[in-house]
Amino acid sequence: MPLENCHLFRDLSPSRLERIHSLAEEKSVEKGAILYQEGTRAETVFFIKKGAVELWTRVNDRFELPVAIVREGGGCFGSAALVAPYRYNLTAKCVREVLLLTIPTEEIFQLIEEDRELGCIIMANLASHFLARLQETRKELKIHFSTIFRSTQL
Amino acid sequence: MPLENCHLFRDLSPSRLERIHSLAEEKSVEKGAILYQEGTRAETVFFIKKGAVELWTRVNDRFELPVAIVREGGGCFGSAALVAPYRYNLTAKCVREVLLLTIPTEEIFQLIEEDRELGCIIMANLASHFLARLQETRKELKIHFSTIFRSTQL
Repeated sequence: MPLENCHLFRDLSPSRLERIHSLAEEKSVEKGAILYQEGTRAETVFFIKKGAVELWTRVNDRFELPVAIVREGGGCFGSAALVAPYRYNLTAKCVREVLLLTIPTEEIFQLIEEDRELGCIIMANLASHFLARLQETRKELKIHFSTIFRSTQL
Repeated sequence: MPLENCHLFRDLSPSRLERIHSLAEEKSVEKGAILYQEGTRAETVFFIKKGAVELWTRVNDRFELPVAIVREGGGCFGSAALVAPYRYNLTAKCVREVLLLTIPTEEIFQLIEEDRELGCIIMANLASHFLARLQETRKELKIHFSTIFRSTQL
């Protein structure tokens, strides 16, 4: 089951995972498709069943930066859809044909309303995930500062 | 009340805010004090009642980078203590004498166990907060890439 290794669902019981799995719809997407654009309204979370998806961010009109490749075996993306401001923070592109599971956030929010403990676990997992990405991004930024600092010391 | 404008407690009812406030301890800290170091085990969340606190990150042995100044009027820091890996992700320094409210995470986790809806709200607010910081940090990183890109185009 592609959901059980997703960061969002860490520490969920098999019965809760089953319940979430029942909300998912399978979808095959062709190579080259854009699943969503950075900054647009977000209402779906995606899970990879087979294949890989690239996540990009726009630097300026002529230049995009690759941020991550999400793969089968637990790969999940679009989870920014679950929290304010409910917009995708990156652009998702299919590098090859990909088999996805999709869940509308509306369904997840409904489930959270019925099962608040599950909601706490998912939201804490999500906070932990964004904190880890924040740490990684700060690390990258520090490499740049370190380079600048070194060059001013020469 | 310094808690009501903190990002963690957005959308909480006055009675829940009161309950959280009852867990807080007031603490006066002198100028120059280090409240916690980046990477250390995190068991307390801090709220500013009066004054300001600087948050820093270490780039290398000789160089630290300022990340934010947190001020009275809703300023809260150390909230990484609430999610895995339960470590402070920055260093907090008092730039002047500061009056704080502190809450042990143990008390907050206890409260969340008693009131799961409150837990969902706090964790969703936290996820949203880290996502916003992630977006800001990516924006900074893009400025660096943009500069590099421009210089290679000259």
